[in-house]
Amino acid sequence: MPETEFDVLGIGNAIVDVIARAEDDLLVAENLVKGSMNLIDEARADLLYGAMGPATEMSGGSGANTIAGVASLGGRGALFGKVADDQLGTAFAHDIRALGVHFETGMLSGGPSTARCLIMVTPDGERTMNTYLGACQELGPADIDPHVVAAAKILYMEGYLWDPPEAKKAFLEAAKHAKAHDREVALTLSDSFCVDRYRAEFLDLLRSGTVTLLFGNESELHSLYETADTETAMAALEADCPFAVITRSEKGAVVLKGGERVAVPAAPVEKIVDLTGAGDLFASGFLFGLARGFDPETCARLGGLAAAEVISHFGARPQISLKELAQQNGLPV
Amino acid sequence: MPETEFDVLGIGNAIVDVIARAEDDLLVAENLVKGSMNLIDEARADLLYGAMGPATEMSGGSGANTIAGVASLGGRGALFGKVADDQLGTAFAHDIRALGVHFETGMLSGGPSTARCLIMVTPDGERTMNTYLGACQELGPADIDPHVVAAAKILYMEGYLWDPPEAKKAFLEAAKHAKAHDREVALTLSDSFCVDRYRAEFLDLLRSGTVTLLFGNESELHSLYETADTETAMAALEADCPFAVITRSEKGAVVLKGGERVAVPAAPVEKIVDLTGAGDLFASGFLFGLARGFDPETCARLGGLAAAEVISHFGARPQISLKELAQQNGLPV
Repeated sequence: MPETEFDVLGIGNAIVDVIARAEDDLLVAENLVKGSMNLIDEARADLLYGAMGPATEMSGGSGANTIAGVASLGGRGALFGKVADDQLGTAFAHDIRALGVHFETGMLSGGPSTARCLIMVTPDGERTMNTYLGACQELGPADIDPHVVAAAKILYMEGYLWDPPEAKKAFLEAAKHAKAHDREVALTLSDSFCVDRYRAEFLDLLRSGTVTLLFGNESELHSLYETADTETAMAALEADCPFAVITRSEKGAVVLKGGERVAVPAAPVEKIVDLTGAGDLFASGFLFGLARGFDPETCARLGGLAAAEVISHFGARPQISLKELAQQNGLPV
Repeated sequence: MPETEFDVLGIGNAIVDVIARAEDDLLVAENLVKGSMNLIDEARADLLYGAMGPATEMSGGSGANTIAGVASLGGRGALFGKVADDQLGTAFAHDIRALGVHFETGMLSGGPSTARCLIMVTPDGERTMNTYLGACQELGPADIDPHVVAAAKILYMEGYLWDPPEAKKAFLEAAKHAKAHDREVALTLSDSFCVDRYRAEFLDLLRSGTVTLLFGNESELHSLYETADTETAMAALEADCPFAVITRSEKGAVVLKGGERVAVPAAPVEKIVDLTGAGDLFASGFLFGLARGFDPETCARLGGLAAAEVISHFGARPQISLKELAQQNGLPV
């Protein structure tokens, strides 16, 4: 394998989060399923925003959050994602570059605005997300720089990329280059409703060997195999994919690799403030560890620690150095 | 006095805060005085932003923060302030209206963008602010709706309004209408460097009786009277203004009214996270109390409590209901 410049390259929807505290009443009134991600158009975005309280704007996007976490651990990250050349797009680009992440996807001019995710955080810490994809719909194969793909140990993509029509082509283009350079290709299932929309395609990515490392939580896994039984789903996944990680909230994570299973407990959290980014940051730790050659258990512990940090505060990006946090917890970085 | 619709009407620079944690090194490298507010042009804003880490965008602006606090206490607030019709301006308008504040100043089209304040928060919780005034420079007398001025018990203005050339005319226009309806006209000195820029004009506002209630902290007061001795400055202030409140950080506040002085201790704070908005929120509590007819000591206690809430977290707007906080602390709202 030739030398690599990056630990992890992410491809994801480049989104600015608009986060507000909300009462359960708002979810009921707006007919929203708690904990879900809903795709909305601009008119619905304006309507929901009008119903939300004062908000905070922070860079988000599932894959981008993961790469931000990799950088916070001291890893070398790169990201492909499409923003517009507007104020929110400028903020997104600033925030990811300020972490030292390589982010050079061209900004969109004269098209839809930068994507926004209206996030309602209820008092239980759950987040309900409403995404206006905007400029993300313009990410396509032309945005894939093959040199960057070749220069990254791991290519990591979000299932949400199946929503904007051109982005899945970008995903497949990137996967082709990654395979040509013998890189690991990882996918996160993103959301159980997303899995429901693209079940056949996601299974095909696994069964064709395009994706060789899968991330998902229990409800996404249940959706993928249309079962309510985790053991049934895990057995099916083991047949479809050589390497997978199932996150189980406070029950920790299970790594499935080559017929072996490793269960790792969750890292303790004093108070859950906002669950946004939990899965994204778990992937940060796991992927960083993998790129550095650590064993699956250590990778999962790094993931659990990063997830615990991000749910202890508002917002989906780490607020402290994850590298220092890992060192304080006796984990290698 | 005819019936009023609002407790407090604020006039201020309508600004979106761009907040990032920073080390002291950055202040040294950029030649910034810790705790100060610096006016910057767009080129300098771009340069400083590039040197800052990942940031969070939140509505800010001194006077706007104060009115947001009045609303959080259950008061009826109104605000005059100029944003552009861009993404940050839309966010500013959303956030203040979501609190129930009357905010109908026309948005600027085709001019400078919405004002931004780049705030560097050092590990000691101090904030160093760098303001690009943008659209605020277009606030003028035409933006003053005399009906709203007449409908508010108190008119509250920030000293920072002296920076954009037309805004001070808006201030004087509003003060004229407030006087005509026998309303209280209050001013905050804003910042010691701001006082240094406009000392003669601020003293004239007091001595002419235009402003009858003054807010300031010790360093602003020292700057106003060009002395390092607080007692000397307070005595001079008593001669110039019938009603004033001097905030003294952890030493609490002193109310000067008609020759009497009332000292009130600061409310306890577990950990100071970010001092941004401390003075603004003190004014919220004090002005709300005054509008509701409470005595100066109670007003100052409400102010101290609101300030303590805002410095215990990132950002310059309250994150919980100040009304409930006041009730929990046995203060009237």
